[in-house]
Amino acid sequence: MIFDRGLAFALLLALASGVSPTNLRAQTTDAAIAHHVFTNGLELVVIPDHRAPVVTHMIWYKVGAADETPGKSGLAHFLEHLMFKGTAKNPAGLFSRIVGRIGGQENAFTSSDYTGYYQRVPADELKKVMEFEADRMTGLVLTDDVVLPERDVILEEQNQRVGNNPGARLGEQIDAALYLNHPYGRPVIGWRHEMEQLSRDDAIEFYKRFYGPNNAVVVIAGDVEPDAARALAEETYGKVAKRFEAVPRQRPQEPPPVAVRSLTLADPRVEQPSLSREYLVPSFATAKKGESEALEVLAHILGTGSNSRLYRALVMEKGDAVSAGAWYQGSSLDMTKFGVHGAPRPGVTLPQLEAEIDGVIAETIDKGVSAEELERAKTRLIADAVYARDNQASLARWYGSALTTGATVDDVRQWPDRIKAVTAAQVQEAARIWLDRRRSVTGYLVRQPGAQPEKKS
Amino acid sequence: MIFDRGLAFALLLALASGVSPTNLRAQTTDAAIAHHVFTNGLELVVIPDHRAPVVTHMIWYKVGAADETPGKSGLAHFLEHLMFKGTAKNPAGLFSRIVGRIGGQENAFTSSDYTGYYQRVPADELKKVMEFEADRMTGLVLTDDVVLPERDVILEEQNQRVGNNPGARLGEQIDAALYLNHPYGRPVIGWRHEMEQLSRDDAIEFYKRFYGPNNAVVVIAGDVEPDAARALAEETYGKVAKRFEAVPRQRPQEPPPVAVRSLTLADPRVEQPSLSREYLVPSFATAKKGESEALEVLAHILGTGSNSRLYRALVMEKGDAVSAGAWYQGSSLDMTKFGVHGAPRPGVTLPQLEAEIDGVIAETIDKGVSAEELERAKTRLIADAVYARDNQASLARWYGSALTTGATVDDVRQWPDRIKAVTAAQVQEAARIWLDRRRSVTGYLVRQPGAQPEKKS
Repeated sequence: MIFDRGLAFALLLALASGVSPTNLRAQTTDAAIAHHVFTNGLELVVIPDHRAPVVTHMIWYKVGAADETPGKSGLAHFLEHLMFKGTAKNPAGLFSRIVGRIGGQENAFTSSDYTGYYQRVPADELKKVMEFEADRMTGLVLTDDVVLPERDVILEEQNQRVGNNPGARLGEQIDAALYLNHPYGRPVIGWRHEMEQLSRDDAIEFYKRFYGPNNAVVVIAGDVEPDAARALAEETYGKVAKRFEAVPRQRPQEPPPVAVRSLTLADPRVEQPSLSREYLVPSFATAKKGESEALEVLAHILGTGSNSRLYRALVMEKGDAVSAGAWYQGSSLDMTKFGVHGAPRPGVTLPQLEAEIDGVIAETIDKGVSAEELERAKTRLIADAVYARDNQASLARWYGSALTTGATVDDVRQWPDRIKAVTAAQVQEAARIWLDRRRSVTGYLVRQPGAQPEKKS
Repeated sequence: MIFDRGLAFALLLALASGVSPTNLRAQTTDAAIAHHVFTNGLELVVIPDHRAPVVTHMIWYKVGAADETPGKSGLAHFLEHLMFKGTAKNPAGLFSRIVGRIGGQENAFTSSDYTGYYQRVPADELKKVMEFEADRMTGLVLTDDVVLPERDVILEEQNQRVGNNPGARLGEQIDAALYLNHPYGRPVIGWRHEMEQLSRDDAIEFYKRFYGPNNAVVVIAGDVEPDAARALAEETYGKVAKRFEAVPRQRPQEPPPVAVRSLTLADPRVEQPSLSREYLVPSFATAKKGESEALEVLAHILGTGSNSRLYRALVMEKGDAVSAGAWYQGSSLDMTKFGVHGAPRPGVTLPQLEAEIDGVIAETIDKGVSAEELERAKTRLIADAVYARDNQASLARWYGSALTTGATVDDVRQWPDRIKAVTAAQVQEAARIWLDRRRSVTGYLVRQPGAQPEKKS
């Protein structure tokens, strides 16, 4: 099972990267996408796509690591694993074996805001996976026999994904320093000392509190008609009784950021030093109108691809960096992150590289972006959205992440139009307001302690 | 009402600073100190001191800001204010008026770990204050009429103590960056945006959950015999019914610190730039035997007074600093802080000063401390403890803070002996293990953004 900190749009689009522009043939029109809410609160999104006789079936729960009780970090992800441990009706492993037997694929993922499960199966097997998924929505049976070994599995996952990955360790430290109060500062995988204490009771309590039809969004993309999918959903998910009243997802919010922060992580396994900076910025859900879209365009102009400002200045022109880029994670229920990063060529220090990045940002704030850059970024972002639409799984994932982070089906539909409407002035304003170093944490990843002194005279 | 982040021993001793060695006449022997636990769970400590016909009466609740529900920061301190709003029996203000009328003094304080109330009154008025205090332990009556104006009071207090105080703002930011997971990262006064939302219901819920006889320690120091004080306590506090079962005070703990962190806060009101560093270190309650005492001695040798290493090196010898020092806050239920700080002379930059501080620390780690320094520090700490014993209020405060942060009466009694036992090897080892920059956050306080660049090439 994978976990992610939230879905960066760029990352989402990467899922669709196999599709080249010349192949472009968007099968799914916005109008064909159906959205329905059942009486038990379950939301259904159906995205017809008849190019192949397969369906992607996803269920997204509106719960993630940021909803955990403090001290129980990693619980949302742990429960994601435990959801494969069987129910009274279906013993552990049966669901996965059947998906495999019919030639399907499955996976699951956890972020700070959501937990999702998906299967890609032949279209005529859709009902079967819906039955299994509806059954484990409230029917999970957990015993210490299965819980404790699975805890070893997530501990080993933490070890592999974070413990043995200097870049991931850096990211954890930056997040923890960026969020002073909000639980987004907590790793999705969990803090190891807390993961080690997670129990069956913790998992069951969390499950009963958050897993139910009125906290779930089912997204079905593929060779099925909305009416048929809805009928199947009614027969399966529609029969699951509500077991709690949904409550507003209110997490502790951030105080206004005021201090420029930096940190250095030394790890002997680092081959290539790098720096990574995150700014605390609005997400789509928290932004004023147009602001999130301007940040999306800004990230593209600053740091997506070889035409971006950071890449051109640092890698191509000065040659001081081997990589440089920027990103923005728009889909987030609360205040989110805008990132810049770079890796220096041998002989260039991280502070030098950082000064160059700061120069590029300062110039963007001072002089804004050109009409040409703006058009290129918008065209590219909109084209990427079209490619995403062309990919069944990525489109399903887009809707799922939107609906579990405060956006609506219409928000997703209107996304290209909103990007189209972004002006150069908005991009400059977004850079000026949000790329303020007092909102940021800069992390240095180095091989040896002291190799990159943190202070200058 | 004051609030504090916890009680640094040095701060505690400062309360006794009016007493000079030649006046030294410790009236209170350890053996005379009585400790009793009533059947309703209330703890009583009596410290006889018959030099003057006065008593210091304190009640300490084992609850502080670190026990607040996330999102409700400032609630422990808010309730401290609201405790003066009257009960069914005693209208708002009556208790304070009576204390004033009999020539007494009163105050209250909140830390991350405890909340306390005290009165200093003529000895024959002791029963009266105990009656009032026992009454408001469970009898508080709150209406929006009194709660909402008091919220404005704490907001104004936040403004004065933190908002308008650059040094306090820096401290808040350092704490928030030091604690990645533990609620000690949260300001005791609260985050303003959360304080603004605190309600009567929040206060009542917190009060009912934490205020009761089995979560309180009464400390009485002064002109009263233990038996008499105990009888008075039985008549007053002894009659308060338990209203909850005490639960272990378990807060989310810190992951092992791995990143060297720094931050810069610019504030136009800063007259004198300064730097302040905190290391995450064991408290008396979390330390292995002898470790907390070694840190106490280390803080003294490094940075207490004009004979300390930091002061001598930075202020006297090099003349690069106008001040420099170190401190250790031993009384803390969970992992605590060891601090170093300094302010540069004009023309000296903060990074220069920081390098000099690092030099002094590195030398201490490498070469340890001399027998003479060790003896001087121990003698002074023990003498200070004797002075503290000589001061009724500071001794009461010492016991109160100890008993609400995981220590016992015997721990306080044995403190001088434990300090006496510290060896030079233990001090060096404490410096080596705990003064590791990966455990630390260094904060720069400057006047103008960019005046002190954070990185060097």
